[in-house]
Amino acid sequence: MYSYSCLKALFEPESIAVIGANADKLSTGSVITANLLASGYKGKIFPVNGEGEEVHGISALSSVSDLPRSTDMAIVCLPPAEVTNAIEALAEIPVRAAIVTSRGFGEIGREGYMLEQRLARTAKNSDMIILGPNCMGFMNSALSINASLETDFTSCGNIAFFSQSGALCTTALDWANSEGVGFSKFISLGNKAVLGEGTILSYLASDPDTKVIVGYCETLKDGQDFLRTAFDATFKKPLILLRAGETPAGIRAASAHAGALTGATSAYNAAFRQTGVMQAVDIEDMFNLAHAFSCQPLPEGSNVAIVTNSGGPGIIAADMCEKGTLNISRPSSSTLDKMKEFLPAYASLYNPIDMIGDATAETYHRTLRAVAEDDVFHSILVILTPAANILGEVEKVAADIIALGKECSKPIITCFMGDHSVEGARKLLRGAGIPCYDFPEAGVRSLDAMARCARWQKKDWPIDVCFRRDYSKAKSIVENCKLTGLNELVELDAQNLASAYELPVPETVLARTSNQAAKAAKRIGYPVVLKVASAQISRKEELGLVITNLNTPQELRRAFLQITTRATRRCKDAYITGCLVQKMGPENSHEIVITFRRDPQFGPLINFSLTGLHVDMLGDVSSRLAPLALNDAQEMIREVKAYPILRGARAGAAVDLGALEDILLMVSQMAIDLPEIQEAEFNPVIAGPEGAVIANMRMTVG
Amino acid sequence: MYSYSCLKALFEPESIAVIGANADKLSTGSVITANLLASGYKGKIFPVNGEGEEVHGISALSSVSDLPRSTDMAIVCLPPAEVTNAIEALAEIPVRAAIVTSRGFGEIGREGYMLEQRLARTAKNSDMIILGPNCMGFMNSALSINASLETDFTSCGNIAFFSQSGALCTTALDWANSEGVGFSKFISLGNKAVLGEGTILSYLASDPDTKVIVGYCETLKDGQDFLRTAFDATFKKPLILLRAGETPAGIRAASAHAGALTGATSAYNAAFRQTGVMQAVDIEDMFNLAHAFSCQPLPEGSNVAIVTNSGGPGIIAADMCEKGTLNISRPSSSTLDKMKEFLPAYASLYNPIDMIGDATAETYHRTLRAVAEDDVFHSILVILTPAANILGEVEKVAADIIALGKECSKPIITCFMGDHSVEGARKLLRGAGIPCYDFPEAGVRSLDAMARCARWQKKDWPIDVCFRRDYSKAKSIVENCKLTGLNELVELDAQNLASAYELPVPETVLARTSNQAAKAAKRIGYPVVLKVASAQISRKEELGLVITNLNTPQELRRAFLQITTRATRRCKDAYITGCLVQKMGPENSHEIVITFRRDPQFGPLINFSLTGLHVDMLGDVSSRLAPLALNDAQEMIREVKAYPILRGARAGAAVDLGALEDILLMVSQMAIDLPEIQEAEFNPVIAGPEGAVIANMRMTVG
Repeated sequence: MYSYSCLKALFEPESIAVIGANADKLSTGSVITANLLASGYKGKIFPVNGEGEEVHGISALSSVSDLPRSTDMAIVCLPPAEVTNAIEALAEIPVRAAIVTSRGFGEIGREGYMLEQRLARTAKNSDMIILGPNCMGFMNSALSINASLETDFTSCGNIAFFSQSGALCTTALDWANSEGVGFSKFISLGNKAVLGEGTILSYLASDPDTKVIVGYCETLKDGQDFLRTAFDATFKKPLILLRAGETPAGIRAASAHAGALTGATSAYNAAFRQTGVMQAVDIEDMFNLAHAFSCQPLPEGSNVAIVTNSGGPGIIAADMCEKGTLNISRPSSSTLDKMKEFLPAYASLYNPIDMIGDATAETYHRTLRAVAEDDVFHSILVILTPAANILGEVEKVAADIIALGKECSKPIITCFMGDHSVEGARKLLRGAGIPCYDFPEAGVRSLDAMARCARWQKKDWPIDVCFRRDYSKAKSIVENCKLTGLNELVELDAQNLASAYELPVPETVLARTSNQAAKAAKRIGYPVVLKVASAQISRKEELGLVITNLNTPQELRRAFLQITTRATRRCKDAYITGCLVQKMGPENSHEIVITFRRDPQFGPLINFSLTGLHVDMLGDVSSRLAPLALNDAQEMIREVKAYPILRGARAGAAVDLGALEDILLMVSQMAIDLPEIQEAEFNPVIAGPEGAVIANMRMTVG
Repeated sequence: MYSYSCLKALFEPESIAVIGANADKLSTGSVITANLLASGYKGKIFPVNGEGEEVHGISALSSVSDLPRSTDMAIVCLPPAEVTNAIEALAEIPVRAAIVTSRGFGEIGREGYMLEQRLARTAKNSDMIILGPNCMGFMNSALSINASLETDFTSCGNIAFFSQSGALCTTALDWANSEGVGFSKFISLGNKAVLGEGTILSYLASDPDTKVIVGYCETLKDGQDFLRTAFDATFKKPLILLRAGETPAGIRAASAHAGALTGATSAYNAAFRQTGVMQAVDIEDMFNLAHAFSCQPLPEGSNVAIVTNSGGPGIIAADMCEKGTLNISRPSSSTLDKMKEFLPAYASLYNPIDMIGDATAETYHRTLRAVAEDDVFHSILVILTPAANILGEVEKVAADIIALGKECSKPIITCFMGDHSVEGARKLLRGAGIPCYDFPEAGVRSLDAMARCARWQKKDWPIDVCFRRDYSKAKSIVENCKLTGLNELVELDAQNLASAYELPVPETVLARTSNQAAKAAKRIGYPVVLKVASAQISRKEELGLVITNLNTPQELRRAFLQITTRATRRCKDAYITGCLVQKMGPENSHEIVITFRRDPQFGPLINFSLTGLHVDMLGDVSSRLAPLALNDAQEMIREVKAYPILRGARAGAAVDLGALEDILLMVSQMAIDLPEIQEAEFNPVIAGPEGAVIANMRMTVG
């Protein structure tokens, strides 16, 4: 982790060296120097080139070693092969922060990747922070720094934007300049050899000029680091991310683009969800959300008032609300009374409040005040279509909404439909910090994200849970397994490991003969389950080597014979130790699957679902990254669509949810404690009205 | 159904009367007269007002009865209470077509609804076609007719637009005028008292000026009529619909707005799917699709080439393709060879084809030609971001794409990202009939809809299937049930009815005593199922009055006693006839549910799903409207996410799909033949590797 002073040196430098800036006006270094000058940068600029050529009227140094010790930051614009040496020379000054704009690193394949690795090592060894390589640089509007290849500078604003893709940087800048929106910081991350999203987020979270953080990513530099910093950041500021590379085709394209390993989409979704990130659905949505969050307050709740002068768009907005998390509440009776005084009889007073085409600026004024004063509503969506009655007054409505925005602490989003007839009003609204969209759908999406963000920020901090566990016992079981060269724990070992975490496992006895089995069953109590015991056999159930619901010694003996004969026949190379006799799970139960595997980006991803082919086909699985807090476990269980089944839907039994939560938490702890366990599957977990037991489990060790 | 001549009189009139047009320049009649004059209408205009006042320099008639017999169409702009009389007077001339712009009908509640019903009856009795009431009128650009309240006239174009909502009409006109797009016909439907979507579609489908039909609806005037006409229309022309009022909140809002009964959303979706309608996801998407379909050819297949000069947007596009139905195919090897000649080593030659930021207009030219000539690809998405290398050549790229569009029969959609730097190029492209969007997502959505439309139009016409069925037997069973005053068929009757349709029902015998049951079971063959027989008990399974898998006479007798005892205790008012002995379904089977109910808009909606609580929770149900063709039945079965289970996923048994298709088709026929059956549920249908049987069924009669 880099110190804040290091990040300040990078993003708030008092002096900047531009390595490779020369007299060629088209060279990268020269362009950046020109951009720095044009933006009005107040600090010192030191161009450096071998020839000592003057750059845009600034005399240059001929060597990095000539730089003063106080130089804060260097921008390196050199051919890729020369970059690492330059970084080493800079480190000696010492310069502690650099931007590397040069291309020809990881993005071009193996050779470039090796160069990039060397660059990263050099940076690490010299405790130097580096933005890039293969990046466009950054802008800091408050300090008038355009340390980027983009010639257009941003105006001041409270949105911080970062992006892995240079094209998205250009697009964002174009969008902002055309909408009159400004960025506080504007950062092109490039290949992220050193500086990734995590560090950027920690900097932006405490940047006083930034109110909203917006980013585009395909992969993350370091998933674990991201989880930590994003979580801290989102409690302070909204964090909006657009991620590309979700689908197999997108992942292929992203790998070709960035040459990076991507994690699973389910892990990304879990990561964003657990850290309160608002995911944008597309580029336009990302910009819309950025704007709405930057200029409007967060709502206190999810009740939205839709005020419109025409039915169709109101219905479209209502549909969108319903698909998301907003409530279209009924106005309070006093608001209804107020509105009845001036709205025509044909108006629809309930929500959406359709004032119908007769509405004038005065109607908008009175309705909006009534709604703004009504405590039922937490946010307001104003829709205007250019009906004849309102045509001459559209800008008056806009001015009135702006006035309302100043008095009212509720977020207001507007949608003025139509083209030239409302263009002036739209400009007025946007200029005054009231988002105005062309169509109602975007307005609802923004308000929905704002309501979700408000809920997230109000959320109780997660409750961490501690368990008694026998770590050394667990560790030794795993070590022993590795010593024996198996890559999967045998069932009794897995059970012992689970017991070390106080996971509920049914009483189980290894029986080498059917006599032993009968004795064990008598002690355990019928009905019992019989399973093959063999270190070499893993998918017992699929092979027909598990027989459940054995009620008598006769049935048991027959089953013993059946299982051992089948096992010998079906698994010729396996050594059959005997059979396990196990207590049956509770009656009136439902079967659950809990698994984890290690995501390359984020670490252990825990999955929860009910059993059954349907679940597999329909993908009704909830996922969270370890470590789970209590609320994560609670959410996981409630998030699956089949949850009503666990609550006893259709006269079924309601299960002991607490027991399931405990299992999830203990499994999470196990995944964190024992990195040797690559994958684990608890399937089925039999959950009844009082407690749950893990009837079967598999753990692979690596 | 109206004759084409009637529709021609309405939309292509040679003379128009404007009833209620007077000297007041702000009156509706006067505005419409002015719009007719301004649009350059060539036919005769007859303003009519009681005073005979001159209107915009045209002398007026003082009574409808003064109109010449040859008058084609009348626009009625009178207070609602006077409209019906005017229509009657018009019918006497006879004028055969009218627009009623007046408000104050169904949209204002009960009183207006009565007026509207009267208006509809009058129209019907006099065989007169009416657009509206509560509508803005229409435009016909080819004949320079602006018979609407909209002052802006549309330019000529090949898109026909109709809308239930006046606000959406205004929005569409604004959009079209700002994008330089024109409408062939532009129709505000209003309350649809007489003229609904079905009639409009039949007219537009044969309108030579119209290439694409686009519409907005909340409800449909007549679902059955829509099904017929939409199906015919979509084989000739793309039909794009945006429907609002899908969700409960949207439905509430739509009912408040239009006062109409809406059908179920699942029925609407089935209707759109079965008739080849392209559903727009939002207003913007509706306009984007309208434009793309209007100016680009349909693709021959689903393989898209994505050509980009930057990675991020390419990945975003690839993600979108994957979420839809487009394939991102690999270029042919000869194309790869061609591209290798001029693309830099770091470019990504596979698809998306990322030419990287170095790309110039020349690179675009060569890559696009290579891709256009490659038979692998059926459509092309060109992405351009304003990288430094291309900045001076953006319009050159646009001109080159326009040239390519003229030579190439594949659809080309472009996405030029950024603002002022690409604005000129965007205008060029759009003006030349190449859609150019701001962001890649919209481009992918358009190409995807075009590929789906092409598949639909190439589709084989549905195969209607005829069955042997004993209609008179079926009818008499239903009639008898109604005579006895029951609203549900008793099980044996339901079975007989099913047999009349040759539906596979298991052999079933009514046994009044356990002795009779044992005899029956012996004859049928064990294992058997035993169920209570009672006209008063409907949900037998939930009440524990069905016992399956009885293997011996002892078990059977015990079960008989259990069921009859339980039934007496649990259903005190029921008369217990005895028990039904039924053959068990096949081994290795899966359980299916097939149901239908009558949708108020569209008639019988048939549903197909696997059984299980999960399915209910997750909504994995496919639905189609009756009558089903063979391909509908096939699609229904394959469309459920759990379909792999029926194919024998995970070592399960594969079922006889043909048997399930037959059941669906026969159930569809039954639903069409017997309108008395309100709802039917075949649950479970037990499907095995060879055949399927309906183990249980319920039918309500009304």
